[in-house]
Amino acid sequence: MKRKYEVVVIGGGIIGCSIAYYLAKEKVEVAVLDSGSIGAKTTSAAAGMLGAHSECNENSSAFFPFARESQKKYFELKDELYALSGVDIGYREGGILKLAFSEEDIHALNHLLVRPTVEWLNESEIRKMEPGLSPDVLGAAYIKDDVNVIPTRTCESFAKSAQTLGTQFFEYSHVYGIEKQDGNYIVQTANGDIEARHVVVATGVFSKALFKNLGITEELTPVKGESIIVHYEKPVLTHTLFHDSCYIVPRNNGKLIIGATMVEDDWSDTVSLQGVNFLIEKANTMLPAASAFKIAGFKVGLRPGTFDGHPFIGRHPEEERVLIASGHYRNGILLAPETGQMICDFILDKEIKSEWVEAFRVDRRQYMRV
Amino acid sequence: MKRKYEVVVIGGGIIGCSIAYYLAKEKVEVAVLDSGSIGAKTTSAAAGMLGAHSECNENSSAFFPFARESQKKYFELKDELYALSGVDIGYREGGILKLAFSEEDIHALNHLLVRPTVEWLNESEIRKMEPGLSPDVLGAAYIKDDVNVIPTRTCESFAKSAQTLGTQFFEYSHVYGIEKQDGNYIVQTANGDIEARHVVVATGVFSKALFKNLGITEELTPVKGESIIVHYEKPVLTHTLFHDSCYIVPRNNGKLIIGATMVEDDWSDTVSLQGVNFLIEKANTMLPAASAFKIAGFKVGLRPGTFDGHPFIGRHPEEERVLIASGHYRNGILLAPETGQMICDFILDKEIKSEWVEAFRVDRRQYMRV
Amino acid sequence: MKRKYEVVVIGGGIIGCSIAYYLAKEKVEVAVLDSGSIGAKTTSAAAGMLGAHSECNENSSAFFPFARESQKKYFELKDELYALSGVDIGYREGGILKLAFSEEDIHALNHLLVRPTVEWLNESEIRKMEPGLSPDVLGAAYIKDDVNVIPTRTCESFAKSAQTLGTQFFEYSHVYGIEKQDGNYIVQTANGDIEARHVVVATGVFSKALFKNLGITEELTPVKGESIIVHYEKPVLTHTLFHDSCYIVPRNNGKLIIGATMVEDDWSDTVSLQGVNFLIEKANTMLPAASAFKIAGFKVGLRPGTFDGHPFIGRHPEEERVLIASGHYRNGILLAPETGQMICDFILDKEIKSEWVEAFRVDRRQYMRV
Amino acid sequence: MKRKYEVVVIGGGIIGCSIAYYLAKEKVEVAVLDSGSIGAKTTSAAAGMLGAHSECNENSSAFFPFARESQKKYFELKDELYALSGVDIGYREGGILKLAFSEEDIHALNHLLVRPTVEWLNESEIRKMEPGLSPDVLGAAYIKDDVNVIPTRTCESFAKSAQTLGTQFFEYSHVYGIEKQDGNYIVQTANGDIEARHVVVATGVFSKALFKNLGITEELTPVKGESIIVHYEKPVLTHTLFHDSCYIVPRNNGKLIIGATMVEDDWSDTVSLQGVNFLIEKANTMLPAASAFKIAGFKVGLRPGTFDGHPFIGRHPEEERVLIASGHYRNGILLAPETGQMICDFILDKEIKSEWVEAFRVDRRQYMRV
Repeated sequence: MKRKYEVVVIGGGIIGCSIAYYLAKEKVEVAVLDSGSIGAKTTSAAAGMLGAHSECNENSSAFFPFARESQKKYFELKDELYALSGVDIGYREGGILKLAFSEEDIHALNHLLVRPTVEWLNESEIRKMEPGLSPDVLGAAYIKDDVNVIPTRTCESFAKSAQTLGTQFFEYSHVYGIEKQDGNYIVQTANGDIEARHVVVATGVFSKALFKNLGITEELTPVKGESIIVHYEKPVLTHTLFHDSCYIVPRNNGKLIIGATMVEDDWSDTVSLQGVNFLIEKANTMLPAASAFKIAGFKVGLRPGTFDGHPFIGRHPEEERVLIASGHYRNGILLAPETGQMICDFILDKEIKSEWVEAFRVDRRQYMRV
Repeated sequence: MKRKYEVVVIGGGIIGCSIAYYLAKEKVEVAVLDSGSIGAKTTSAAAGMLGAHSECNENSSAFFPFARESQKKYFELKDELYALSGVDIGYREGGILKLAFSEEDIHALNHLLVRPTVEWLNESEIRKMEPGLSPDVLGAAYIKDDVNVIPTRTCESFAKSAQTLGTQFFEYSHVYGIEKQDGNYIVQTANGDIEARHVVVATGVFSKALFKNLGITEELTPVKGESIIVHYEKPVLTHTLFHDSCYIVPRNNGKLIIGATMVEDDWSDTVSLQGVNFLIEKANTMLPAASAFKIAGFKVGLRPGTFDGHPFIGRHPEEERVLIASGHYRNGILLAPETGQMICDFILDKEIKSEWVEAFRVDRRQYMRV
Repeated sequence: MKRKYEVVVIGGGIIGCSIAYYLAKEKVEVAVLDSGSIGAKTTSAAAGMLGAHSECNENSSAFFPFARESQKKYFELKDELYALSGVDIGYREGGILKLAFSEEDIHALNHLLVRPTVEWLNESEIRKMEPGLSPDVLGAAYIKDDVNVIPTRTCESFAKSAQTLGTQFFEYSHVYGIEKQDGNYIVQTANGDIEARHVVVATGVFSKALFKNLGITEELTPVKGESIIVHYEKPVLTHTLFHDSCYIVPRNNGKLIIGATMVEDDWSDTVSLQGVNFLIEKANTMLPAASAFKIAGFKVGLRPGTFDGHPFIGRHPEEERVLIASGHYRNGILLAPETGQMICDFILDKEIKSEWVEAFRVDRRQYMRV
Repeated sequence: MKRKYEVVVIGGGIIGCSIAYYLAKEKVEVAVLDSGSIGAKTTSAAAGMLGAHSECNENSSAFFPFARESQKKYFELKDELYALSGVDIGYREGGILKLAFSEEDIHALNHLLVRPTVEWLNESEIRKMEPGLSPDVLGAAYIKDDVNVIPTRTCESFAKSAQTLGTQFFEYSHVYGIEKQDGNYIVQTANGDIEARHVVVATGVFSKALFKNLGITEELTPVKGESIIVHYEKPVLTHTLFHDSCYIVPRNNGKLIIGATMVEDDWSDTVSLQGVNFLIEKANTMLPAASAFKIAGFKVGLRPGTFDGHPFIGRHPEEERVLIASGHYRNGILLAPETGQMICDFILDKEIKSEWVEAFRVDRRQYMRV
């Protein structure tokens, strides 16, 4: 293991791999450390909806434009990454239908419908698009350009592309601590120490020990998500269905994902009977034919929750060459490209939109309190 | 492959393997043919309850004494088979609680309670034994000596014991047909022909083609059963719970089995969302803590159903050296030892209880009609 | 289940599904029957190399042009099928390197090098393309336009596209026999009888019983192939390597396939220690870095071998509305499109190249003998 | 989560669970914390040979009597644990054959043969016991009373027995640090703080961060072990074979384990092609029929290596209520009972054999150096 890098990224999930990729494109010498294997934890359990619209329930914040910008980046990334890595990210168009079963649901969709890319479909229109929908559906907000990708592939594609451009990846290299020494950082791992000019903490919900080590008082809390992977005998769905934080996503590979539960403060990676029961009932509510789906597997991951639901992306308040990129909650896949770009811009001292810097800074809570 | 055997057993599930074992003990030269691997189909999906009492809803027939005799045989078999094969069958005592949630349930248990080995437990007694039971349980029929075994292991133990005693097993040897020639039978397989003095058909629900080939008009219809294997964090159950054809069985290996659905005329080996939903709800009804159980896997198998729910065990009506041992429905594991003994006795021309011969003969339907 | 179809295709592997697709495009009413689930047997174990050149060791026959035509069809199929099914077939370009380790190897490649699409690369050229190759490689025949696809996806994509166009699929519908009745065919299945104007037998190596039933004397013999699926930490390979019937194929999904053994007359679907040992040693011979690859899984399938290594595609010698499409040996994925087209043309009485008709007819052996 | 315990055991592998069990039997209030699930890491990958003799290559140390005492404890534990937990540990007798292929091998076995429980078998004697052995075997040391157990079951059985006796288990509770406060210890976990009068560190190879936190300078280094689980068609082996640190172990469940590689300083949990190749070749050397074995799965674990190959069991040099029980290398399953007993005796201030205290104390290296 080489012992000195311009940047050490801790965490080889989708966020860390995207950061490595954007840095590698700028010819920065990077090492990525992961305590296990690349993309094996939270990333592996994501559904991969790039739901800039569907995940955004507020119009006022900087979140939507940031998410939208990130989503758009995937359009070019899919080919760029394939050319470098040989790994196809499974980019799939088709759009998302946010279903309404009640007047309340319709009301809740109003904030979406002001956007030019979102269209209201009434019952007969929606049934033409998806004949198998529940007869209880009243209509849907149709977001044509919300696409999906396959998360493990996308992460692997970022990682292998970065490798092709020179980045080093060290799997199974748990980081025990970070110490400052002569102006640089010594990252202490199971496999020995590595020196870095810049350190990026991209360890998602597993950031607690490093945050403590770095004097950051924010906490990331796990929100466990369980999903079911199913296969189906007859074509039943061409669009992603979404209702009440649950979804059915058709994948490029002929499978569907039904997700996801939201279990707070649960650190386990197991699938519970009650979680599965909940998902089956939600799926049946949207699509009665779901009861005949066949179980092909499960996915579980721990979303890193923050106090306001938005990620921490920015410099450490006191150590400007320590950067944080954690806390992406339900939106890691969606936000990975723009997070990668933004951390790269911080390290190269490029200009970054000030709304984004403010919205995602690590110490924003104390400013809010003032 | 040797080309001539005293007996060829077609089917290497629990029934075929038990038959081979009983014949091998009598030094009969046997070959067992299976289209796949030993014990991989219906046998592998069984829960392994040796429920002579719990599975028996009638007192009048020959079924109960036959089942009871078979169950008792396991007591000695467990050591006998271990000594020969080195495979432990996972014999576990503890008993079964047939739960009552209503007056109707209580009434339905009455026929059981006449037996000396079955005891009625009222609500407070049962709650002392199993504190986690649903508050809705009114009482239970407690069958102390219904035990359980691990079906795949039991099958493997029969097979390896038979091998130790000289039986030949040919896996992946699909049988295409049986032809008579010079008084013997030519069994045609994917790997070539084998000659046999006696042929035993023990292919469970997959007997259709052979029955047709042999001129037997009875049909075996599949009743698919899905089960969930779960693990649990805290000890919650020491007895098997049973209600309304569903059960929760604690296994020797620290897992529980929640089973089983009853899907008629379904030949698939997949697990459907609706099947899983049904099982989770049944489990919760009996044991509320079940909702926290973790999914460890699934099992699926096709029970071979017959017109009257009882197996076909006996000689072919016209070919006395062709024997049938198929159609054990929900009770293959339970009935395997006595079925093995009985087929062995037929082949060796020993005396067999005439009630059993009559109860299980292949052509019994036409006699009933008379 | 509807009881009457214009065409019943028996076998839902890549061949049966392609046939259904080509017929469905012509608006023919088709049912596909499979004894298990779609694409689950031989198809699932294929590597997916569309090696029109690499699999062809002779120049004289009709095989190469047929294979080449079939391979070309995939170029348009990939988009056509995706649009209809939403399933991406994982089409990947990159080409195949047929490696030479000896003068003998070089000599054996000569017949390939006469083709305009094949290029000889010397040691230094090849090492530029694949720096990780064994130092013992002397050169390679580089076949730029041999691509690969993901076989299970391709099969599913054919099937779901056919479904979209109206084809019915019946999984878990084992066929017991075919009988002629009033000029049509009665196909007897586990789920009851189906009547068909035309019957297509596309059951690969499992055709024995049906061939016998139909009076066809040719035999299909299994040649078992085991493969290892691996993942790798660093990008090591961008082209498929091929030597001595073994290969390392980089997949679209970030995995590599190392295949395949050739075990004759073995009907099992298990992976043996000696098979794995053989593959690891072959992989190391081509690519020393292979020893660090991580095992992600195995694939096993039974190739349907024929007496001359070429498939049977054509009409039954005496029953012109019974068609055979079995025996594709190592080349099922490659030959599926053109086989589908050809069977479709037979059924619609269109013109078919006479060389192909002759080369693949079921009764060709007796003509050869003359 | 209750917040105060007499003893907090960190680590829920076989060592931590055994400690909890012995403490629970003494009615001590214990909590066990594990960063993941019980017995899921190194424990799960062990073969379960209780090789007091076979693992011991020296006669002088305290290691053999300690190991032997621990091994003997299992004889009673198997029933005791089953009664409390309902989980069968898979105890299997049969003995181990340490094979000799050369004069050098024979010489190396001499130290074993002085023991009364070890017997030399010459070639013809050994071949009677195991007819399938390689013709190259010259003889073997036969250790009749080395038995084996199933490690995951044994760990689960310790854990569930301790639970039955009152111990609390907290899975998915990663420990970030230990701080002293008012004479007690505050154990900081992902789920909050827990106070303890005594702390036991039983985290095996993953002890680095805690050792550092506690000021212990010894290091545990990983020695990765990969094994293959196989099934076999015919009974081929009734005794465990052992040669050159590799073994073939017949299990109670009809499977065999072929193990294990020794990869130093490798933290990964993946199975490499070269590891598998090595194991297959070792197995073939001992038992030629191994080449036909079928792969059923793999196991990987990280043995915790220490500077002298013996575990650290004892009090922290400066904090007498902090106990260490880590570093059991290849012998965790074997040494678990006596380690549990010994830690229990430390906590209850009972007398412990002084040779054992000295042999396993954490700071023994500095005394050795003097």
